Amino acid sequence: MLRAGSFTVNEELAASWARGKRLRKLLVEAPDGIKHVAVELARRLSEAGFDVIVSGRHAWGGCDVGVREALSLGAEGVIHLGHHGHVGPRVTEIPVLFLPVLSEADPMPAFRRAVLEALSSGYRRIAIGVTVQHMHFLGDLEREARELGADPVTGSLDGFRGLVVGCMYSSLSGGEASVVVAGGVFHGLGAALWTGKPVWVADPFTGEAKRVDVKTAVARRLEAISRAIDARSFAVVVSSKPGQMRLRVAELVVEALRKRGREAWLVSLDEVTNEALVNLGAAEAYVNTACPRLAVDDPELFPGPVVNPGELKYVLLGKLDGYSPRDVFFFDARDLA
Amino acid sequence: MLRAGSFTVNEELAASWARGKRLRKLLVEAPDGIKHVAVELARRLSEAGFDVIVSGRHAWGGCDVGVREALSLGAEGVIHLGHHGHVGPRVTEIPVLFLPVLSEADPMPAFRRAVLEALSSGYRRIAIGVTVQHMHFLGDLEREARELGADPVTGSLDGFRGLVVGCMYSSLSGGEASVVVAGGVFHGLGAALWTGKPVWVADPFTGEAKRVDVKTAVARRLEAISRAIDARSFAVVVSSKPGQMRLRVAELVVEALRKRGREAWLVSLDEVTNEALVNLGAAEAYVNTACPRLAVDDPELFPGPVVNPGELKYVLLGKLDGYSPRDVFFFDARDLA
Repeated sequence: MLRAGSFTVNEELAASWARGKRLRKLLVEAPDGIKHVAVELARRLSEAGFDVIVSGRHAWGGCDVGVREALSLGAEGVIHLGHHGHVGPRVTEIPVLFLPVLSEADPMPAFRRAVLEALSSGYRRIAIGVTVQHMHFLGDLEREARELGADPVTGSLDGFRGLVVGCMYSSLSGGEASVVVAGGVFHGLGAALWTGKPVWVADPFTGEAKRVDVKTAVARRLEAISRAIDARSFAVVVSSKPGQMRLRVAELVVEALRKRGREAWLVSLDEVTNEALVNLGAAEAYVNTACPRLAVDDPELFPGPVVNPGELKYVLLGKLDGYSPRDVFFFDARDLA
Repeated sequence: MLRAGSFTVNEELAASWARGKRLRKLLVEAPDGIKHVAVELARRLSEAGFDVIVSGRHAWGGCDVGVREALSLGAEGVIHLGHHGHVGPRVTEIPVLFLPVLSEADPMPAFRRAVLEALSSGYRRIAIGVTVQHMHFLGDLEREARELGADPVTGSLDGFRGLVVGCMYSSLSGGEASVVVAGGVFHGLGAALWTGKPVWVADPFTGEAKRVDVKTAVARRLEAISRAIDARSFAVVVSSKPGQMRLRVAELVVEALRKRGREAWLVSLDEVTNEALVNLGAAEAYVNTACPRLAVDDPELFPGPVVNPGELKYVLLGKLDGYSPRDVFFFDARDLA
C-alpha cells in the first residue's frame, strides 16, 4: 500500500493490473485534491519500470476519464485515482483501472453527531451515504448507527453499497433522512436536492456534522429559470468529456428551442469556463448538458442564466409551477415535445 | 463572403468543401479574438442545412486543432478559422478545412511608418512578415516598401509568402531587419527572438508602428534558466494538443535530467494552467515542451522557473554562456547527450 498524507492507495494492484495486461506506458490521473497521490504513484511505477505520464487534467469524476489524452500520448492504459468507476458510458477505447484512494480520517465522531441529530429530529430510517474515499468504513458506520438507535438503510450504486457521487444518490432512496459521509458540503447538497428529504453531512476531515440547507440553492435555480424564460437566444453547452457528453439531449434541446422561435446553437467544451463562453459572444441564456452540478454549484461559469435539460420545460412553458430540485438531475425528452 | 465586424470569411468555400466531402456534421472553431465569427459562420451553415457545433476551445493556432473533440462529438469535419494550416504533424483522423479570416483594417499607414523608421536606422533589405489575417495585403506592402526606397524580401512558410506564426519566422530570414504586420506585439517579439535582427511591428488595428525591444524578454529567460540550474526536481510538461505534442523530446529531457541525478517526471496537459500545475504539487522547475511561446509570454503559468528544451543545455551545463534567444524555438537532441 502506498501512503500519501492521510490517504492510502493500492500500489500493488496498479502494478499487477498493468503487468497482467502487458501495459508498459501508463497515464495516471486524479482529482485535484489528491493529485499529489498521483505524482507519488507515478514515481513508484516509474521505479518499477513503467513509462508513466501524470495527467494535469482536473479529472472531476468517473465521467471525466482521460481516454483521448491517453490515446494521443500513446499511453496503453489509464490509472484513474479517487473515483469508483465509469460514470456515463463505459470507456472501451483503452483499459482503465479505477483505483480508490482511501482516507484514514476517522468519520465516526462526525457521523455519530449527525445520526444523533437526525434521530432527535424524529427520523429513524436513516440512509447512509459515503464517497469512495470513505467507503471502507461503511460496515462500521452501519453498526454505529444501529447502536445509536437508528435503523440504517443502504442502497447501492454500481455494486458499491452506500456509494454516492456528485450526480447520483440512488443509494439513499430508502431513508426518511440521510447522513452523507463526505468532506465539504458538495455531496450533501446533491443528496438533499436528489432525495428531497433531510440530509446531514458528516465531514471526516473537520469532524463536523451539519444539516444541509437547500433553500439558497433552490432559490438560485428558480431565479435562473425565470430569467431564462425571457431569453431569446440560447447557447446549448455540450461536453466533450466521455461521461458528460449528452449530445442527443443537447440536439433535442436545440430543436425544441428553435421550434419555439428561440435562437439556439450548440457549443462544445471540455472544461466549462466563463472565459470560453464570454469569448463566444452573447447568448441571453444557457442550457447546460454537461455535468448537472455546474448549474447548481458554479452558475457563475455561465455569462447568463443557466438551466439544465430537466429544467427547460419550465422555460418552454413560461412558468415555474411544479418545480422540483430533482429536475437538476433528471431529463425526460417527452417534456420538450 | 461572410462579414463579421471588420473581418471577412469565405462562407461559400466552407459550404462547398463540406458538400464536396459529403460532411453533414461540422465542428467550427476559431481563436478567441474572432470566435464571434465562428458563431456567425455556424449560424449560416446551420441555415444551409448542416449540423454545426461551435467549439469553445481556445484554438490557439494551427497546432491546436480540435480533432479529438470533433471525433468524440461525432463531427465529420472541422472548420478551423483564422490560421493558415497545420502546425506540427498534419491531422489525418478527420478532414480539416483551414479557413482564413481576413481583416479589412488598412495596414498601410502603420506599415509606412515602420518602413521609414527601419530605413532611417540604416536598414535597406527589409523582410516583410504578415499574419494570416493580413496576408492578402502582402503585394501592396511590397510595392509600398519599394516605393519608399526599401528592398523588400519575403520568404515563405508552407507556401504562404511572408507568413509568420507564433513559433515560426523563417519567412523573415533574408532581411537585415523586418517589419511584421500584426496586431499587438506577440508576433513582433517572436520575430525578433527568432531572427536576432531588428524588428518593427506595424499594427493595422491601432495604426501604430513600433520597434520591438527584446531586452526584457531575454533577461527573463536568463533569469529563469539560472534559477532552473539550481533545481533538483523538474516537471516536464508535454502537451496533448496535436501540433504541440513533442513526447519524444519530453522523454529525452526526462532521461537527461535523471541521468544527472535530478528528479523528473512527465506531466501532460491540454491547456497549461497555473492551477493544474500547482495541484500536482511542488516541482522546483519546469521544462515546457508544449508551445514554446508559453515560456516567453506566460511564464507565470508555471509555479517555478520554466525552460524550453533548447534552453535545457544551459541548465545541464550549469552556465549561461552562449545563450541565444533562438534557443527558445530550437532543440537539438545532441545537446542533452
